[in-house]
Amino acid sequence: MLLQRIDHVGYAVEDLEAAIEHHQRLYGATVTHREVVESDGVAEALLAVGESYIQLLQPISDSSPVAAFLTRNGPGVHHVAYGVADMDAALEHLQAEGARLIDEHGRPGSRGTTVAFLHPKGSLGVLVELVHDPSA
Amino acid sequence: MLLQRIDHVGYAVEDLEAAIEHHQRLYGATVTHREVVESDGVAEALLAVGESYIQLLQPISDSSPVAAFLTRNGPGVHHVAYGVADMDAALEHLQAEGARLIDEHGRPGSRGTTVAFLHPKGSLGVLVELVHDPSA
Repeated sequence: MLLQRIDHVGYAVEDLEAAIEHHQRLYGATVTHREVVESDGVAEALLAVGESYIQLLQPISDSSPVAAFLTRNGPGVHHVAYGVADMDAALEHLQAEGARLIDEHGRPGSRGTTVAFLHPKGSLGVLVELVHDPSA
Repeated sequence: MLLQRIDHVGYAVEDLEAAIEHHQRLYGATVTHREVVESDGVAEALLAVGESYIQLLQPISDSSPVAAFLTRNGPGVHHVAYGVADMDAALEHLQAEGARLIDEHGRPGSRGTTVAFLHPKGSLGVLVELVHDPSA
């Protein structure tokens, strides 16, 4: 099995601080990591849930894909990310199986990870992210 | 922290068999459980990913909420489910904090679980399910 765990579920949010407060108040969740990912145009916060995270994403520029998502859909689930042990091998296998890769090679994600996205049109309508987390 | 783990991510799919085959071919995923949940009007398949599942949901009647979701949105992520240790205590706490509960009390889910849903309008646009799995 290529997918080791659900690394995170990414929520597109309008207001990062309000979304953190929502999860703290309702669930007692705490922020494990915060980062601004300039290349994706987002500010993110990670809340640990078991072996996974809830990833809250607020756009920091109008050109961010998450800004476009919010305009089109409103807040909600933006993508689902799965942990993989070997990103190169995973992408090579997926390409051979005809998956529609947005990223043909892994690229730097937040918190020192390597990430690659699969297009929802080849993935049952779900924007899927693969994550290799060297610390996991 | 009230949420113990991501129990599953629920995908709304048009064709359950094709969705299972997709996950087998691309990821080597295997079906852990299959069930028809008449009360929700769906046929489901669970694929284990770490401590979580991908839950594939195909409507079996036009009155299924998943059928309405597919008509409105097409296939994609339908809901996110989190494991809780004590359903009654969780729902009591959430109600006190002003969460919008679809189910005020836990009800039977698939594979012997007890489940309750939170309305997306009070939950950052995400349809959230709580799951108590006595076998977990």
